[in-house]
Amino acid sequence: MSIPDLIKKKRDGGTLSDDEIKTFIESVANETIQECQTGAMLMAIWQKGMVDQETETLTREMMSSGEVMSWPEEWAGLVVDKHSTGGVGDKVSLVLAPALAACGCKVPMISGRGLAHTGGTLDKLESIPGFSIHRSAAQIREILGSVGCCIVGQTETLVPADRVLYALRDATSTVDSLPLITGSIISKKGAESLSALVLDVKFGRAALYKDLESAKELAQSLVNAGNGLGVRTAAVLSRMDATIGRCVGNSLEVIESLETLKGNGPDDLMELVTTLGGLLLMLTGLAPDQSEGSRRISEAVIGGAALSKFRAMMEAQGVATETARLLCSAHSDYYSVLRKSEHQRELETPTDGVFEGVDGLVLAEVLHKLGAGRSKAGEPINHSVGAELLVSPGQRVGKGVSWLRIHYEDPVPTPDQIQRLQTALSLRPCDRPQTPQTQSLVEELLLPR
Amino acid sequence: MSIPDLIKKKRDGGTLSDDEIKTFIESVANETIQECQTGAMLMAIWQKGMVDQETETLTREMMSSGEVMSWPEEWAGLVVDKHSTGGVGDKVSLVLAPALAACGCKVPMISGRGLAHTGGTLDKLESIPGFSIHRSAAQIREILGSVGCCIVGQTETLVPADRVLYALRDATSTVDSLPLITGSIISKKGAESLSALVLDVKFGRAALYKDLESAKELAQSLVNAGNGLGVRTAAVLSRMDATIGRCVGNSLEVIESLETLKGNGPDDLMELVTTLGGLLLMLTGLAPDQSEGSRRISEAVIGGAALSKFRAMMEAQGVATETARLLCSAHSDYYSVLRKSEHQRELETPTDGVFEGVDGLVLAEVLHKLGAGRSKAGEPINHSVGAELLVSPGQRVGKGVSWLRIHYEDPVPTPDQIQRLQTALSLRPCDRPQTPQTQSLVEELLLPR
Repeated sequence: MSIPDLIKKKRDGGTLSDDEIKTFIESVANETIQECQTGAMLMAIWQKGMVDQETETLTREMMSSGEVMSWPEEWAGLVVDKHSTGGVGDKVSLVLAPALAACGCKVPMISGRGLAHTGGTLDKLESIPGFSIHRSAAQIREILGSVGCCIVGQTETLVPADRVLYALRDATSTVDSLPLITGSIISKKGAESLSALVLDVKFGRAALYKDLESAKELAQSLVNAGNGLGVRTAAVLSRMDATIGRCVGNSLEVIESLETLKGNGPDDLMELVTTLGGLLLMLTGLAPDQSEGSRRISEAVIGGAALSKFRAMMEAQGVATETARLLCSAHSDYYSVLRKSEHQRELETPTDGVFEGVDGLVLAEVLHKLGAGRSKAGEPINHSVGAELLVSPGQRVGKGVSWLRIHYEDPVPTPDQIQRLQTALSLRPCDRPQTPQTQSLVEELLLPR
Repeated sequence: MSIPDLIKKKRDGGTLSDDEIKTFIESVANETIQECQTGAMLMAIWQKGMVDQETETLTREMMSSGEVMSWPEEWAGLVVDKHSTGGVGDKVSLVLAPALAACGCKVPMISGRGLAHTGGTLDKLESIPGFSIHRSAAQIREILGSVGCCIVGQTETLVPADRVLYALRDATSTVDSLPLITGSIISKKGAESLSALVLDVKFGRAALYKDLESAKELAQSLVNAGNGLGVRTAAVLSRMDATIGRCVGNSLEVIESLETLKGNGPDDLMELVTTLGGLLLMLTGLAPDQSEGSRRISEAVIGGAALSKFRAMMEAQGVATETARLLCSAHSDYYSVLRKSEHQRELETPTDGVFEGVDGLVLAEVLHKLGAGRSKAGEPINHSVGAELLVSPGQRVGKGVSWLRIHYEDPVPTPDQIQRLQTALSLRPCDRPQTPQTQSLVEELLLPR
């Protein structure tokens, strides 16, 4: 079948065969397809969708378009990774990767950069002086051997078809397509030759998917495609309305992650880390069930084993020994290592009340404008820009109490932005009865069939 | 709005504003749009369609992407053209253009080439030695001044946006989209700055549209867009099951056209010529109504005035005076001028019966394979290849009577192809009563509102 025939078939809502999808992806990878044809096919897929079998084949063919990693035989069953659909203040990877390594897993974590209001793990790590996210497949193998985990950027040789399609999806308004999202995420994880994978699919105000139903649809598609590639894959559906933890912004989130690895982590972050990690230990068989897995992850974090792994990982990825030691010591002066923003400003509560939370999307959008995020791939960001919540959910505060500290440099926050941040604050009148407060972030699990 | 925003709006079924369509077409014409984006937009338009206003704007913006012809003031109201959606044995243009010129119209007919089973007026004319279809806008104006009609190919400067979109539509399987077909056809006619336009929209076995309803939908879209550009536009819905006239193939159709211009035309061809021509004379106001218009066209054909115009047009388009004289004389030996195929073969009736007709699509497909047509733009064709029907509808024939003469060279017809041609023959048993026989080709007219 010719490319126009394939486009026509999908255009008319047909189901593409394995061979037809292979033809399409190969033509994308070796650039024999005309760019207009890729655009038309992406739009036809956006309009007509794909059945599970098509999505699975698309994912496999994308994965096979480049290098597929291989691991020593003795790691069989131990190689794991996590992927999140993106949140605000989401620093789970920085804690989870070393915790998993401390529990005996091998974690070749390939992460991404932030875009729009969503933060990126690589950007966070790059606020640590010396930290390099560039490691070859051979170097990754070496670090997994000695440390057990690394957090790196995508290498050039991995899933070239995705690099092409991802750029074109952006240009052609076909980003939000279930099979295309699934193919893009899972093909990259498949190329890591994982034993097990856990997906943190977020829903809510500050997530890509606003409601649970659509997030669940994506989660199911990801779980199907992952298991289709032979990777034991599960998904967690987690709420993304407020920020995760109290800090947003690259340097600030590194500090909060280190504090967590020192046993002082906020409850919501710890819930995500232990849930996701527990699932992975269960999927690999390292733990008999999820709750035992979660317990071991928690122990690795609280007991300091994960911190040691994080320190070793930093050194393996270019951070000077002295820098790593300073960051990991008991009472670190973090700003002796990390750059602090030139200016801070505290916002005050306009009335008294009980602090209920902060709108993560509003907070992220303002910080993005202040330089914490980028609008286009490749733009520089300011690692020191961010914000710290100074109050805790459920805490009773008076009027005029500092509730948020903004870290900024250039540009300075405008009165409009300050006003927007104030609207992100949610205060309950003191005389209104407390609604059941502490809500779990994790709404639902999707396990492999 | 950015291009991805425009794509997104159409992707989601929105209605594009005039400015948005202008942005899209300008970006196509000046090549600032990425090709993948054009492909995605074409597919989104294919999927979601366009409302009348969008189609009209698309057509106008395409027209405005290049040169728009201009005519002397004294031709106001006289400049007309015809467009057909493509048939088998459709030689209407060769008779109609000179007939209209003989009735006082100016006919800057810009025609196309054949593709797949559909013949092309330009290919037919090029079987005449010396005939050149390349004429600049200035030359066209000159020929219209001296002769009144010409039949030429599209110039480079006319509707550049269509040239780009047409090529990409083919590659992206977005050819059969009502707004895109409408934009492509009417923008080119609009750039001819016509006073009136008539469209021959065909339906039936050998047409692009198999049923009347879908053909009518296209006709209405074309009529709307034409009138939207200020061109008085009407459409004829005509049946396309058998061939038009008795000859199919380039040289053979030129011969049949010349015979028609000498007053010996088959009824079906004459019906189309007088209907389409009558409509145009009515639309320009040259005739008080369509029937008087048809009468004048018929008179111009029967009386020889159209033949004189055709002869003058041939000379104005490069044919030697002696060649033109030979072709137009009373008892021409056409093959002293036109090339005859090396071989002819006659097919015989397998039984006796009454001849009812021939399947135009089957006939055209076999002739295409024998070299009369092309599968891809730019491929050469053999002008001498074709077929002549040797019997007339309603004629009673015995078994073993020659009913079709095939003109061929290389390749020779295979036994399979001969078999297919025999199945194209429709014979009624002699003892079965005659159904109402002579059916008009013209099913319906769509007049401007």
